[in-house]
Amino acid sequence: MFENAGQRTELSSIGEFGLIEIISRSVKLYHPETLKGIGDDAAVILNSEEVTLITTDMLTEGIHFDLSYTPLKHLGYKAIICNLSDIYAMNGTPKQVVVSIAVSNRFSLEAVEELYAGINLACNHYKVDLAGGDTTSSVSGLVISVTAIGTAAKNQVVYRNFANENDLICVTGDLGAAFLGLQLLSREKKIFQENPSIQPDLSGYDYLLERQLKPEARKDIIDQLMQAGIKPTAMIDISDGLASELFHLCTQSGTGCRILENRIPIDVKTAGLAEEFNMHPVTCALNGGEDYELLFTISPADLEKVKALKDVSVIGHITRKEEGLKMEDPSGHQIQLKAQGWDAFFRENK
Amino acid sequence: MFENAGQRTELSSIGEFGLIEIISRSVKLYHPETLKGIGDDAAVILNSEEVTLITTDMLTEGIHFDLSYTPLKHLGYKAIICNLSDIYAMNGTPKQVVVSIAVSNRFSLEAVEELYAGINLACNHYKVDLAGGDTTSSVSGLVISVTAIGTAAKNQVVYRNFANENDLICVTGDLGAAFLGLQLLSREKKIFQENPSIQPDLSGYDYLLERQLKPEARKDIIDQLMQAGIKPTAMIDISDGLASELFHLCTQSGTGCRILENRIPIDVKTAGLAEEFNMHPVTCALNGGEDYELLFTISPADLEKVKALKDVSVIGHITRKEEGLKMEDPSGHQIQLKAQGWDAFFRENK
Repeated sequence: MFENAGQRTELSSIGEFGLIEIISRSVKLYHPETLKGIGDDAAVILNSEEVTLITTDMLTEGIHFDLSYTPLKHLGYKAIICNLSDIYAMNGTPKQVVVSIAVSNRFSLEAVEELYAGINLACNHYKVDLAGGDTTSSVSGLVISVTAIGTAAKNQVVYRNFANENDLICVTGDLGAAFLGLQLLSREKKIFQENPSIQPDLSGYDYLLERQLKPEARKDIIDQLMQAGIKPTAMIDISDGLASELFHLCTQSGTGCRILENRIPIDVKTAGLAEEFNMHPVTCALNGGEDYELLFTISPADLEKVKALKDVSVIGHITRKEEGLKMEDPSGHQIQLKAQGWDAFFRENK
Repeated sequence: MFENAGQRTELSSIGEFGLIEIISRSVKLYHPETLKGIGDDAAVILNSEEVTLITTDMLTEGIHFDLSYTPLKHLGYKAIICNLSDIYAMNGTPKQVVVSIAVSNRFSLEAVEELYAGINLACNHYKVDLAGGDTTSSVSGLVISVTAIGTAAKNQVVYRNFANENDLICVTGDLGAAFLGLQLLSREKKIFQENPSIQPDLSGYDYLLERQLKPEARKDIIDQLMQAGIKPTAMIDISDGLASELFHLCTQSGTGCRILENRIPIDVKTAGLAEEFNMHPVTCALNGGEDYELLFTISPADLEKVKALKDVSVIGHITRKEEGLKMEDPSGHQIQLKAQGWDAFFRENK
């Protein structure tokens, strides 16, 4: 995939220090409290009176991404997004990221620059400082590890484990689209591999592809919640599918839940493609990963406020633990939810 | 290497959530300011009036370690140490780490537990909280990415770029031993591969092997400097060899340096094995990596204070930039230092 990129500069010709130098040149810092970014043994961050939030995620080639259909720039962007999403899910503001990559010698300098172009684009979009990292070799695939650092006022942090009985369950955006975007890319890759003369037909699927390849983190929702004066009682980002996240939130809060199937927000494109694949759209929303939407619970007293927010759906409420995790279908049947979500180990062993 | 471990539990049988649960159980927290560790979207750390230090390092199988002679427990220990070393090199105190691992399905639960036993041992030894991380799959090798979070009083942070002309150059401990430990392990592996009936002969080399397999970070030096009232003018940890680190420190400070060859601290075991390998011991000290000692500069006024410290050698002084990076050999010859140090890219392409 890098053959078309024109120039190819071997990483071995510039060495690790040369690579760090090149990466550093394109970095802009947005926060005066980032006292020292790239270039020392550690980044130095001036503390505020707020708390510090730290989250980390690792993406490995062949498990989390397939470079035959993932542009490196998108991959860099997404690697940042999935970490920022975790900071927003604490009701915080991401401020810095440190990024480590391991690349094999099949990657050129130009390929690494593409990756960092995406990283820098995400940093610029969300005003986050790329404050350090590590660049090293791998024997085979590409590995990206990102740690995001954020802040929040101590009393504004929203954990997973404080949902209460009768709290309303909200989700942002729509679910299942990223998963179906991935199914589409996998299908077209397979067709192409079987017959290289057939061009991939991805027209009309822009929304699903973008959800898979270039997701966004819901900063806008955190801003809206703040403006509306709503502090969720519990929150988690939806990276492994709604069912998994409900499982985490309810288990940690010591509660059950009841959601209504027809309240789960699913885009019409998602529903259409799911049927093409003979999948139930709701199954994709429950178990498909990488949506990077937010799942949160609010006090029933905040219902009117939350109704006024854009792009938020109320899908059910928190119940007592004994009632378990239930979904009610349109005919009134109660279905037991299982956290069988997207799981890298599961995926690997399919 | 895992065949002897007795029980073998497949990671696929417990899944990612099960693995996180098992890892979490063995974690102890030492700092009350770690408000939330493993178990939410992000760790939550109460800020002090100090600054926050963040550093990250990634270790990949086949590049940074060879599992045929690296016990997983030692590897886990070392992965923490190399990050703590970076925090100490800022004159800071490490407080938390977040650890991400990618493992292929050739690793069992027991293997991952061994790795975390080493991680927890280092956390206990240095009183650092394992506050989060990510566990995922890789297609082939093991990858470990650690981010360490530390604190320091703002006016006590020591950067790389404030060395001044005439400052004295100090190094801790002795150099080159970790590199020779690695050469020894590589040699014995090769002999064993060529003739499996020959048992590896590692007797008498404990010191060098320990320096390679289970290094320590120089917390003791940071404590001593503080007690002696010495604030170095610049500091860096020696992970890529003395020559590389001098290059970084002098380039960033806009200075040159002059060190005396016979002042470079080299253990007698290191010198002995270097000669067995037909290497000059000084070359090993200059270009061998993974010593995790500290290189720092002090004002000449602090000379008497530094002489009283244990395990610190004064090896030269900072000069003007125009004088370059020089080493004087015992006969008075000036040798130009080159930063050709340990470099993962270099290593890969040998």
